[in-house]
Amino acid sequence: MASGENTQKKLWGGRFTQATAPLVEAYTVSATYDRALYAQDIAGSRAHARMLARQGVITAQEAALLEEGLGKVAEEIQAGTFVWRDDLEDVHMNIEHRLTELVGPTGQKLHTGRSRNDQVALDFRLFVLHRLQVWKASLHELIAVLLGQAKAHQKVILPGYTHLQPAQPVSLAHHILAYCQMFVRDVGRVEDCIKRASVSPLGAAALAGTTYPLDPESVARELGLKGVFANSMDAVSDRDFVLESLFIASQIMAHLSRLCEEIIIWSNPGFGFVNLPDAFATGSSIMPQKKNPDVAELMRGKTGRVYGDLMALLTTMKGLPLAYNRDMQEDKEPFFDADTTVSLSVVIMGQMMEALTFNEKAMHTALRKGFLNATELADYLVGKGIPFRQAHHITGNAVAYAENKGLCLEDCSLEALQTLSPLIDKDVFEVLAYDAAVQRREAPGGTGPLSVAAQIRALDSWLCRVQEETPQTQDV
Amino acid sequence: MASGENTQKKLWGGRFTQATAPLVEAYTVSATYDRALYAQDIAGSRAHARMLARQGVITAQEAALLEEGLGKVAEEIQAGTFVWRDDLEDVHMNIEHRLTELVGPTGQKLHTGRSRNDQVALDFRLFVLHRLQVWKASLHELIAVLLGQAKAHQKVILPGYTHLQPAQPVSLAHHILAYCQMFVRDVGRVEDCIKRASVSPLGAAALAGTTYPLDPESVARELGLKGVFANSMDAVSDRDFVLESLFIASQIMAHLSRLCEEIIIWSNPGFGFVNLPDAFATGSSIMPQKKNPDVAELMRGKTGRVYGDLMALLTTMKGLPLAYNRDMQEDKEPFFDADTTVSLSVVIMGQMMEALTFNEKAMHTALRKGFLNATELADYLVGKGIPFRQAHHITGNAVAYAENKGLCLEDCSLEALQTLSPLIDKDVFEVLAYDAAVQRREAPGGTGPLSVAAQIRALDSWLCRVQEETPQTQDV
Amino acid sequence: MASGENTQKKLWGGRFTQATAPLVEAYTVSATYDRALYAQDIAGSRAHARMLARQGVITAQEAALLEEGLGKVAEEIQAGTFVWRDDLEDVHMNIEHRLTELVGPTGQKLHTGRSRNDQVALDFRLFVLHRLQVWKASLHELIAVLLGQAKAHQKVILPGYTHLQPAQPVSLAHHILAYCQMFVRDVGRVEDCIKRASVSPLGAAALAGTTYPLDPESVARELGLKGVFANSMDAVSDRDFVLESLFIASQIMAHLSRLCEEIIIWSNPGFGFVNLPDAFATGSSIMPQKKNPDVAELMRGKTGRVYGDLMALLTTMKGLPLAYNRDMQEDKEPFFDADTTVSLSVVIMGQMMEALTFNEKAMHTALRKGFLNATELADYLVGKGIPFRQAHHITGNAVAYAENKGLCLEDCSLEALQTLSPLIDKDVFEVLAYDAAVQRREAPGGTGPLSVAAQIRALDSWLCRVQEETPQTQDV
Amino acid sequence: MASGENTQKKLWGGRFTQATAPLVEAYTVSATYDRALYAQDIAGSRAHARMLARQGVITAQEAALLEEGLGKVAEEIQAGTFVWRDDLEDVHMNIEHRLTELVGPTGQKLHTGRSRNDQVALDFRLFVLHRLQVWKASLHELIAVLLGQAKAHQKVILPGYTHLQPAQPVSLAHHILAYCQMFVRDVGRVEDCIKRASVSPLGAAALAGTTYPLDPESVARELGLKGVFANSMDAVSDRDFVLESLFIASQIMAHLSRLCEEIIIWSNPGFGFVNLPDAFATGSSIMPQKKNPDVAELMRGKTGRVYGDLMALLTTMKGLPLAYNRDMQEDKEPFFDADTTVSLSVVIMGQMMEALTFNEKAMHTALRKGFLNATELADYLVGKGIPFRQAHHITGNAVAYAENKGLCLEDCSLEALQTLSPLIDKDVFEVLAYDAAVQRREAPGGTGPLSVAAQIRALDSWLCRVQEETPQTQDV
Repeated sequence: MASGENTQKKLWGGRFTQATAPLVEAYTVSATYDRALYAQDIAGSRAHARMLARQGVITAQEAALLEEGLGKVAEEIQAGTFVWRDDLEDVHMNIEHRLTELVGPTGQKLHTGRSRNDQVALDFRLFVLHRLQVWKASLHELIAVLLGQAKAHQKVILPGYTHLQPAQPVSLAHHILAYCQMFVRDVGRVEDCIKRASVSPLGAAALAGTTYPLDPESVARELGLKGVFANSMDAVSDRDFVLESLFIASQIMAHLSRLCEEIIIWSNPGFGFVNLPDAFATGSSIMPQKKNPDVAELMRGKTGRVYGDLMALLTTMKGLPLAYNRDMQEDKEPFFDADTTVSLSVVIMGQMMEALTFNEKAMHTALRKGFLNATELADYLVGKGIPFRQAHHITGNAVAYAENKGLCLEDCSLEALQTLSPLIDKDVFEVLAYDAAVQRREAPGGTGPLSVAAQIRALDSWLCRVQEETPQTQDV
Repeated sequence: MASGENTQKKLWGGRFTQATAPLVEAYTVSATYDRALYAQDIAGSRAHARMLARQGVITAQEAALLEEGLGKVAEEIQAGTFVWRDDLEDVHMNIEHRLTELVGPTGQKLHTGRSRNDQVALDFRLFVLHRLQVWKASLHELIAVLLGQAKAHQKVILPGYTHLQPAQPVSLAHHILAYCQMFVRDVGRVEDCIKRASVSPLGAAALAGTTYPLDPESVARELGLKGVFANSMDAVSDRDFVLESLFIASQIMAHLSRLCEEIIIWSNPGFGFVNLPDAFATGSSIMPQKKNPDVAELMRGKTGRVYGDLMALLTTMKGLPLAYNRDMQEDKEPFFDADTTVSLSVVIMGQMMEALTFNEKAMHTALRKGFLNATELADYLVGKGIPFRQAHHITGNAVAYAENKGLCLEDCSLEALQTLSPLIDKDVFEVLAYDAAVQRREAPGGTGPLSVAAQIRALDSWLCRVQEETPQTQDV
Repeated sequence: MASGENTQKKLWGGRFTQATAPLVEAYTVSATYDRALYAQDIAGSRAHARMLARQGVITAQEAALLEEGLGKVAEEIQAGTFVWRDDLEDVHMNIEHRLTELVGPTGQKLHTGRSRNDQVALDFRLFVLHRLQVWKASLHELIAVLLGQAKAHQKVILPGYTHLQPAQPVSLAHHILAYCQMFVRDVGRVEDCIKRASVSPLGAAALAGTTYPLDPESVARELGLKGVFANSMDAVSDRDFVLESLFIASQIMAHLSRLCEEIIIWSNPGFGFVNLPDAFATGSSIMPQKKNPDVAELMRGKTGRVYGDLMALLTTMKGLPLAYNRDMQEDKEPFFDADTTVSLSVVIMGQMMEALTFNEKAMHTALRKGFLNATELADYLVGKGIPFRQAHHITGNAVAYAENKGLCLEDCSLEALQTLSPLIDKDVFEVLAYDAAVQRREAPGGTGPLSVAAQIRALDSWLCRVQEETPQTQDV
Repeated sequence: MASGENTQKKLWGGRFTQATAPLVEAYTVSATYDRALYAQDIAGSRAHARMLARQGVITAQEAALLEEGLGKVAEEIQAGTFVWRDDLEDVHMNIEHRLTELVGPTGQKLHTGRSRNDQVALDFRLFVLHRLQVWKASLHELIAVLLGQAKAHQKVILPGYTHLQPAQPVSLAHHILAYCQMFVRDVGRVEDCIKRASVSPLGAAALAGTTYPLDPESVARELGLKGVFANSMDAVSDRDFVLESLFIASQIMAHLSRLCEEIIIWSNPGFGFVNLPDAFATGSSIMPQKKNPDVAELMRGKTGRVYGDLMALLTTMKGLPLAYNRDMQEDKEPFFDADTTVSLSVVIMGQMMEALTFNEKAMHTALRKGFLNATELADYLVGKGIPFRQAHHITGNAVAYAENKGLCLEDCSLEALQTLSPLIDKDVFEVLAYDAAVQRREAPGGTGPLSVAAQIRALDSWLCRVQEETPQTQDV
């Protein structure tokens, strides 16, 4: 009978007399998605086989046979000829089953001294580590693009906003560089996570370690991992590295969402600061005039899904006793989803920011709305000896006067200004110039051109260094 | 050129000179997943076409041609011969494009007086409403199964726990019925959501309504919806019905997770209250003795993903200005994910609870651990005229005495008990019987057999009524 | 010894020899916040006492004494003379302890047939129900304010946006009414939750029901609750009503956050659509020109905290076995936090929207940026017999032409337009008028003045009805 | 008039003619909670004043006066004599206002070259860094306690579970050490966050940097911070350090919740592995026998609130444009809440784990339920030359046989076992001994006694090193 066969096929079927319910099979299967780990599974198995031989648990011939078989399996998967079977539950069983078909009973020796608990923990770690490297490289690229745009726009001035209200003029370069700083911190977080996650759990077996004389250190070394597990129960039930990655992904999306919000607002004709390249906008089937910042909107929207992925796994891990519990199978899909989202988003943001052009004229028009030089007037009055609070008050009156007349501060007549304070003289107009306001802010980290240039140099050399250090990303 | 062609194909390409970047196309495409809405899209289009003819916007012949064409499209999709094209962005464009191929230029008239904004809002509402009906029917089934198990176990007594510590004996029926009450409330929430979501947004067009003399009421009626949108801007940007559904899904999963936790704990040999049917358990490839409650664990774990889906869309909807924004495209995947999870989980829980057998002996053994009849002794003493607080204290001493001796209260000698209070007499042993403790709790809603029987009758008649009222669920 | 005393004081101390660790006392105490429930606790106790007397469990004299004592306790709390003691753990113990001081040993009879498990479940339900009524009344107020602003601005036209890009002109009334629709749905959710939560759990006792001949129905009736618990184990461990309330709060905040986003964007001088009243804005200690939409920003920001409150309790409730677990004590603070936030936010939004003034001139200026009448031109061409898709294309060219010249469509010469299509005639200019575009959209739910007037009438009568139905909110 | 006065008092009131609405004041005030930052605010102001003097912006006398005044303010706050005023909005204004009362107009000079935007960013960073140090020290303590318990229980054997089903025997030390590994990773995350957050934002001013010749480096140095901000716009709008801290807090709570779950399950008499110390348990006012693991339950429950705090701030930060927005004021309360929860929870878990005693007898009883030595039998058969899969099958049969007879494997007669496989000999009984199973797992990281001893040594030396490195935590 079919169901009997089905039970028989299970590696653990010995004690069972009834077959798994078909719906249950669909519910519990992971092979539909964990096949994404096939390269890591095979890499881990190769290293395990070689170690088993080195330790004398299997013979060198057996190890060679296993390696050859695993190589064939990898080829079949890459060629798309591999037959995935849901009834074999997961990627591990699918590969082992095919391996055994290819190399005979020796195939079953591969599982010596390990269990699926430590095997999947290894595979997934390798996968996550690989993707973290990809994130890092993509963030480098994005930072390089932003840095390029900053370099090209050091002299462009736009309104700096707080509360989305005009505050003080800043250089466009400075504004863009603020995002570089965010992504630089994200790179730091990725690096810390890589460092912490680079630990091999292989050898923890089901939960208690193994009775075979394994050498986990050498397996870790072969796989490029920095360390080995210290405690077998922790090794099979630790998903910190996934949670930490999901948090980092959330943080990256939060940063991207802020930039998206600006692109969206800046695309509205009330601002008009940016021209969306056609390749990164879409139109409307109804409204012929439309050019919508869909990519930025969708990216902002996708922030939610990555936050959701983090929340999903945090919830799943809450209150689980030691050691492995099946709940933990739910670790992969949130990561896959967040990984796809973050990876694509970072790359697309890089491409979009590279293709974006800025509308300096619109920025200049905006500068003249909102009294962005009011602080300058107040500072000017302080320079004339008036306490700041009083200067603030006089400037408030000047703003009210100008607003009432529909003027900018710099358009007011000297006479008019002098009725507010006799200390105001014609040199005030130099102070009120927007570019002068930017140029006066040369303290470290400020928007002044020299400060910005220093910031660019620092980022340039950082980028140069990290890109040298980063190994070429390649599939395992 | 390829890219030029690509731009040309877009329905909105008029003003655009550059093609969409390929990665952007991959990022923004929804046809890969929103094709799940094809039945609703076609049903909505049919109703729209008929209404357009009734209102004289198109001719009856044109409407007939459109209906025929839409029928063919539906057949192709069901037959798997339909060619989905990602470059046509979404399900709507794919269907309209094929329709136009089939029926010629008349196909384009279908879009008269509507836009993709109200079209997708309609399709998704119909889809969600359909799935909510499915959830409701599945919950009915689950409640029926639980009710069946309750009926079959009215005389079985097990420890009732608070803080997972033995508290008072309860009947297994009563324990199971507590879950019925949770799922009954879930049904109520589903019904309320259906009521609120049953509104047609068609006719809102892009955001401002339409200039055509449409009759949204008749479209809504044809589609089985209770009402029509009151405000076009709200109609295209409202996703409350998705959020509310995701919350309901979260609440259902929370309830299921509680039952799962109990199944998992009860499967441990320290409890041994349930025998997991083989069809709902899995074994271990390493440990031959294993029979793991994987299904219950996985379901508990999947609670996280549904919470995450809710959090995802809540985050996405935060702070979006009117009206439609592309962020809202992110409404579908969380719902699809939650829907799949909840639908399968409810059905599987029903099957598992039906197949589960209970181990009365283990329950009885557990009753004798933890002094579950201590409250009875205290109440007995109160009956003899001692204030409750003093009775509580005496009973505390009795428990300490018995624990020290390794005895149950009912195993203590009358002499021993009398040293604690001379009021204790031999009738105490009747009071200490676990089944007597259950039988004494006959106040409404209590665990007493008559109370439980009343509860069962009430649920039986509720179930009978709702199942009659519920239309047979069928695909739109 | 102090610690001994401390143990002695606990009502449950009988079996314990060691005192609670001081830090543990601080960690587990709820009296610091659950005293907010004092009015509900006393109301519940009064009803319980009266029922105990009716059922003959206590005498009428005892009930009268208890009622009198509870009245005194209530007075002391209201007068601020009540001494709250953390070592008495929670609000229930504090009140019972003081009651017993006031009325002697009879005070202890109050707890007959109930436990803290059903007592807190009752108190918290009464509290939540009371707050839901307050939310409802506040939402009514907010809707009334929005409706008032809509009535006053039926003729004001502003750009309707999709993707924050100019789409089609809409009336300001229509835009505002979209928010009314959202809040009307929120009212519906509040009502459904009230209906479902209006259930008395009193009589469930610790978990198994009680041995006393209680009459839970009459207690529920006295407290204004619609029903009684069906299952005692569910009654003490059900927190659905809190979760549902937190979801509704999240949904309300999501709606408010959308309106806040618009107020913030509209306050930027690039839009300038609204004038923030001074009373709802703040300035800057540095920048004298500043008038920041802080209230709208803070409200948008507070959306996060309410989402967090929902996520907190969903997480807490996951995987809890029956019946009561101490984890559930964590139900109150998220609700209190969300309640304060939502209640204040709804009221403040009402006040702010009432005080807000709109800048029609800025709206008109914005109408002329972004070709909001392009759809009209396309529809005009369709009216002349051109297929829509071709009309869309011609209009796209017209937009490109005008944009290039820095003109609006209505500023283009007839000759220029005719080079794009000879079908364009001078009647096109009537069609391009923004107010005409609005007036043409009179289909139900559209932005046309008659449609909007109908929408206003419907809301007016809805509001009239619900305000009549709503009982005056008063403290329990 | 009162409202006029109120406007006048605001430092930014110049341009405003209307007072803040009273409810708005209550809604926007942060002084009620951000006073927790007073020590950091004063420390930052002292360092700022000294730097201003060094740079010649103010005189040395002025700086001395400011320092003296700030010292007095600190004293008043510590003494509880400081009058906090909500109408002064926040901690900064309250302190500056009092300072100016104490030292006269010089007090206002303190704000030279800074704004509240960089000031609060500095204060909050200092506060978070301080708390992170406290977390780290508490985690060290907790690890030390766990390590102590592990050392004391190296020879105690209990069932190791996967899926909460008996899997293989492990030593209690090994089980406890798994938690040490989790908390060691948490310490690593705290350290990384401290490293990244240790950056002074002072000098960023409102958003654009300052025109004064400030020296941010020296301020950072005085405050013990490792670096200074690179970009002023980022400096005032970066809340990564709060988000990262909230994630770390969530991760710590996830780990604690797992340990709590075990304590709760282990306290149930079906397990009985632990004896809860009275000081960490509570009883029931109704059920005299009760000793509930309330502390562990509440801690598990509080996991939700910390997850909620993380989700709250992630949501708040989504989509905020540069630079400062008032939404960001919502950063403090989630952190305060998470900080209180995590700090207390880690300390209490340490105390509870120290006071906990283990019930070896109950563990031994449990070992004999669930065939924990089945893997040993399978391995034994492999040792006799049978392929593992066949050995697995034979063992499955043995388990079925024994289960049927109600026996443990080790209780089966040799004859009975030999009917399943003739290769089984009497040496099988040595293999089936639970302690032998543990002793055989001596591979690195396994549960074998030597492996565990090595793990203990490694943790001992780690702990020794980190405790030496950690500066004594003290208030700023």
